[in-house]
Amino acid sequence: MKKLEERILRDGQVLGENILKVDSFLTHQVDFSLMKEIGQVFAEAVKDAGITKVVTIEASGIAPAVYVAEALGLPMIFAKKAKNITMTEGILTAEVYSFTKQVTSTVSIAGKFLNSDDKVLIIDDFLANGQAAKGLITIIEQAGAQIEAVGIVIEKSFQDGRQLLETAGYRVLSLARIAGFEKGQIVFTEADI
Amino acid sequence: MKKLEERILRDGQVLGENILKVDSFLTHQVDFSLMKEIGQVFAEAVKDAGITKVVTIEASGIAPAVYVAEALGLPMIFAKKAKNITMTEGILTAEVYSFTKQVTSTVSIAGKFLNSDDKVLIIDDFLANGQAAKGLITIIEQAGAQIEAVGIVIEKSFQDGRQLLETAGYRVLSLARIAGFEKGQIVFTEADI
Repeated sequence: MKKLEERILRDGQVLGENILKVDSFLTHQVDFSLMKEIGQVFAEAVKDAGITKVVTIEASGIAPAVYVAEALGLPMIFAKKAKNITMTEGILTAEVYSFTKQVTSTVSIAGKFLNSDDKVLIIDDFLANGQAAKGLITIIEQAGAQIEAVGIVIEKSFQDGRQLLETAGYRVLSLARIAGFEKGQIVFTEADI
Repeated sequence: MKKLEERILRDGQVLGENILKVDSFLTHQVDFSLMKEIGQVFAEAVKDAGITKVVTIEASGIAPAVYVAEALGLPMIFAKKAKNITMTEGILTAEVYSFTKQVTSTVSIAGKFLNSDDKVLIIDDFLANGQAAKGLITIIEQAGAQIEAVGIVIEKSFQDGRQLLETAGYRVLSLARIAGFEKGQIVFTEADI
């Protein structure tokens, strides 16, 4: 997605060896107009896949995912990272280690929102080591639902998340794919959509 | 907001004395079409207030807030509940106790996204004890910005959040106000908008 790549080049900040900070439009401050376009691009890419639910993980996945859901006319479900006293029944869980937050958390979805007829599009803001996506996949498959694709806003192609997912047989659709950072400059490789 | 009240009556679940679970359209699974209408109703209510930023707190505030931001044509910022290694500079923080999650967390916003010219509309999914809103207010005022209103999707009017905010001089705009639960049935009081 050309427009996303341009925005990353304009507003993204490279920190250290492998951190890209996009807090001015995606992970902290959110640009709704970019999210809307992201939603339309993902929806177009999966329009023949018969998707029934869009699933993401709190918190930075929510804004892009809800616009994907809107573009597809579907419900969006966001997996929770903390147990809440109102979550009482039929909870599906998986363990996810976050390299950026340096903690392992239990991610959960109420089982009632997914069933064996569902065809799921996973959406997340970043794909790096693939741990968050792997956790979501574990949960969705516990519900007997099928994963049609994993849609990623920004993929760090120099980390092994994509390989992990593709080796396991999942389709990955990334809007922007970062090959690496050369002298602090972002280098893209060809995106999926 | 009549349509929201109807949705709460149809899909909300009352748990125990004072918990309302709306996980099928707001706090876990999200109905984008309702969020879109919520965004329009809030935007209409504040259209003459000169709002420059919409601020919420992760995670359940994000979906309604991004649609409010869209309806107003403004950026949305969501406060973070956990420290992230990419948050390195000028972080404004406040302590927030969550009664539903039973933990105190440090809520933060990067100071660069708020300044003394900003007029802020706070959006949150629930107002109960007002702790989350109070935390956001503390942060926003640290930045020297002005709070024009606190927009709430569902207010539990039998808890003291509204009184806390109004006594401190803030305008509260709630789309649905719950007076109480009588024999497990939800009783509304008149909403603000």
